[in-house]
Amino acid sequence: MTAEDCMRRAIALSFETMNAAGGGPFGAVIAQDGKIIAEGSNLVTSTNDPTAHAEVVAIRRACASLGRFDLRGAEIFTSCEPCPMCLAAIYWARLDRIHFANDRADAAAIGFDDDFLYREIPLPLAARSIPTLRLLAAEARAAFTAWDAKPDKIRY
Amino acid sequence: MTAEDCMRRAIALSFETMNAAGGGPFGAVIAQDGKIIAEGSNLVTSTNDPTAHAEVVAIRRACASLGRFDLRGAEIFTSCEPCPMCLAAIYWARLDRIHFANDRADAAAIGFDDDFLYREIPLPLAARSIPTLRLLAAEARAAFTAWDAKPDKIRY
Repeated sequence: MTAEDCMRRAIALSFETMNAAGGGPFGAVIAQDGKIIAEGSNLVTSTNDPTAHAEVVAIRRACASLGRFDLRGAEIFTSCEPCPMCLAAIYWARLDRIHFANDRADAAAIGFDDDFLYREIPLPLAARSIPTLRLLAAEARAAFTAWDAKPDKIRY
Repeated sequence: MTAEDCMRRAIALSFETMNAAGGGPFGAVIAQDGKIIAEGSNLVTSTNDPTAHAEVVAIRRACASLGRFDLRGAEIFTSCEPCPMCLAAIYWARLDRIHFANDRADAAAIGFDDDFLYREIPLPLAARSIPTLRLLAAEARAAFTAWDAKPDKIRY
């Protein structure tokens, strides 16, 4: 399949999930070697899962299918520019490349927070709209020290 | 329960998941009206899910438990400052407040990418380390137009 074929499938999924009341108008596929290995669509409202964006759903399914927690060697095609949650998920999944169609401004124009989140996340904690407080740092540190010293840890 | 009690439970979860080989040393709880309504810990490597960070796991469980896709009125206690994926998930879940213990610099010191991702996400697309390309914008736009006109859409 070409890149355009993969993107057309992601776009088709964006229509399907909206029409089936799955969630917002977003679809994504993950492809490797010219073949789609997983598909996802927005399922936030139908599954009561605010993290069930198309890209996250596709990443979870691709990893489950491959039995791995990384997707090196694969690419994601998403009908809309990933929001910061999905973008960071793409980094954690170690995907090679991102293809998108609609962008964050298009999403903002129909009422989604993607662009707002891109502005919010780089702010210092005190400037963000969700109050954020630090406590018990000294107690939590011990877990990190233990991880650092753990001989059989699985890195990701 | 006090805020310190909630955070101590999140820290305990960070040790438990590490010692049980669930994943990295991270735990989180979601509390409402002084009561924990959901717990989560990092399950990335044990479940082959790169999105299974403690905060995401806790959010998904809290929403499943409440049968809602938002967590207005609740707060999250996480043993480490949320990475951008988890921070955006917290915004999408509409949580009222964030409490954290370790921070992104502590996480970087033991080999995690949180701080790198905070620097990467605000960059222009062309400056990021994952190549990002736009295609078929005109074809994808139709789904957004349809969503905008959809009379029975469920916003989130």
